[in-house]
Amino acid sequence: MAAIGAMPEIGGFRQKSRRSFVTLILTVLTSSQSILIVWSKRAGKYEYSVTTANFLVEALKCALSLVALLRIWRKDGVTDDNRLSTTWDEVKVYPIPAALYLVKNLLQYYIFAYVDAPGYQILKNLNIISTGILYQIILKRKLTEIQWAAFILLCAGCTTAQLNPSSDHVLQAPFQGWVMAIVMALLSGFAGVYTEAIIKKRPSRNINVQNFWLYVFGMIFNAFAIMTQDFDSVMNDGFFHGYSLITVLMILNHALSGIAVSMVMKYADNIVKVYSTSVAMLLTAVVSVFLFGFHLSLAFFLGSTVVSVAIYLHSTSKARR
Amino acid sequence: MAAIGAMPEIGGFRQKSRRSFVTLILTVLTSSQSILIVWSKRAGKYEYSVTTANFLVEALKCALSLVALLRIWRKDGVTDDNRLSTTWDEVKVYPIPAALYLVKNLLQYYIFAYVDAPGYQILKNLNIISTGILYQIILKRKLTEIQWAAFILLCAGCTTAQLNPSSDHVLQAPFQGWVMAIVMALLSGFAGVYTEAIIKKRPSRNINVQNFWLYVFGMIFNAFAIMTQDFDSVMNDGFFHGYSLITVLMILNHALSGIAVSMVMKYADNIVKVYSTSVAMLLTAVVSVFLFGFHLSLAFFLGSTVVSVAIYLHSTSKARR
Repeated sequence: MAAIGAMPEIGGFRQKSRRSFVTLILTVLTSSQSILIVWSKRAGKYEYSVTTANFLVEALKCALSLVALLRIWRKDGVTDDNRLSTTWDEVKVYPIPAALYLVKNLLQYYIFAYVDAPGYQILKNLNIISTGILYQIILKRKLTEIQWAAFILLCAGCTTAQLNPSSDHVLQAPFQGWVMAIVMALLSGFAGVYTEAIIKKRPSRNINVQNFWLYVFGMIFNAFAIMTQDFDSVMNDGFFHGYSLITVLMILNHALSGIAVSMVMKYADNIVKVYSTSVAMLLTAVVSVFLFGFHLSLAFFLGSTVVSVAIYLHSTSKARR
Repeated sequence: MAAIGAMPEIGGFRQKSRRSFVTLILTVLTSSQSILIVWSKRAGKYEYSVTTANFLVEALKCALSLVALLRIWRKDGVTDDNRLSTTWDEVKVYPIPAALYLVKNLLQYYIFAYVDAPGYQILKNLNIISTGILYQIILKRKLTEIQWAAFILLCAGCTTAQLNPSSDHVLQAPFQGWVMAIVMALLSGFAGVYTEAIIKKRPSRNINVQNFWLYVFGMIFNAFAIMTQDFDSVMNDGFFHGYSLITVLMILNHALSGIAVSMVMKYADNIVKVYSTSVAMLLTAVVSVFLFGFHLSLAFFLGSTVVSVAIYLHSTSKARR
């Protein structure tokens, strides 16, 4: 943040560098997130309750937004754009993304009846296409034909990079599995695009206030998830049962990358977010070679090549607009 | 051919439709070629000598070119552009492609010491890249950046479509194997691009005369191959030992697709040829599902998607020039 603050206030340049900065941060955080997951699985520590961890992530994001706001108030004073108080008209749409994610997370439990975990990883790439479609429909911003070609390549490239000998199972997944995967992709794409619509609706509004309200509803919905899914285990074993250093690091990472996602929505868009998380997926695989001695497959090289061409096409197409 | 003759002689349109026609024919012939190979392997009939078959392919192409020339002479009379006699200056470059292919075919015997057959199938896709590079260097025609992106995608997509669980072996191929694969890709790319240069050097020259001379040298070089590699078996068992109906069909098909390649070089270019044979590879796989009950893998779908986007990008980029 200091580096950006020191930059000259030349509108376009500053905006562009802020955009690149938040995108870079998101990529690094998403990548390290996956590495933490692999690490925690290797350490065999996964006995904490996921719902309590999710709740803490939302609470931490809320707290961090408040800290950022306190600093801004001290510096600039309280203005119309950075005051925490809000109108019903402004806040009424904020629960929607949190509710969509909740439904998606509930569906996640049921899809495993039809699709195995590696198959689900493959099907999750449908998110890329659903985000592109909903971005165009809901935000009414048009992707050029080349950008669409790039987006299809991004989806094909990411899937190729994740191929393994058992990936073909997914083609035999039952019809219900495919329907659920598509519904989940649409829910997740809709939640992302809707969040962007909320955040961009009032561009001058301080992002930390917008985040605060998003995360408040995130806390409420996750509290609901704890009560419905993990009430007994929390009552018997305690809220923090099974927590370890890795759990704390994962919560910290999730909170920071959640904030980075919001920043990308504010200063860039969902398309940039999808590219960023795709690159993070590839980065994770490369880093895992050094950290965990993983091997890179030929499919990974081919998929990475296709993703690189997709990024190139997207960026040249944007430059030409 | 009749369909083309009936078309109005509107320059650009006629040229474009002739271009599309020869490309389509090449795609269909290349595709059926692979299907014949699979069929002959399934029938367990592969005991004929490959060098004699190659010789007959060249001889048949020669004969077909002569028949076409006879018809043209009867219709238009003998002109400077369709006369068979030639100068040393014109004909001296014609042996070069045949010689290059001979060297490449000899190397093919040695590469299997380092790379297994499925690995070689994968490495053959390097041809696409080498053709693109040599096309630009030798024919001095520039591919746009988008066309290069499309060409890289074509290579990645074809390789992805051919992936199978054992493909990763190729990454462990020894250094010599990679060097030989690259040399073979360069030889094959060079032969293709050089043939185009020869054929395009004198655009008004009748293609059948050009083909005749190309194939005469093809016959000579293949006669040389019979003598060095299969002399004993031809002497003991006879020239046509092990020939079957499938062998005859394969020779016929190879001859026709050889002529189609020449036509594509004359009326289109090596880039179109590469796209055509890539599409043929995908077509073969789809047809094999129906003919032989093969299964299409997820990798095949992903690779086909990437190839389709590559074709789209190449064609829009051309339209914009």
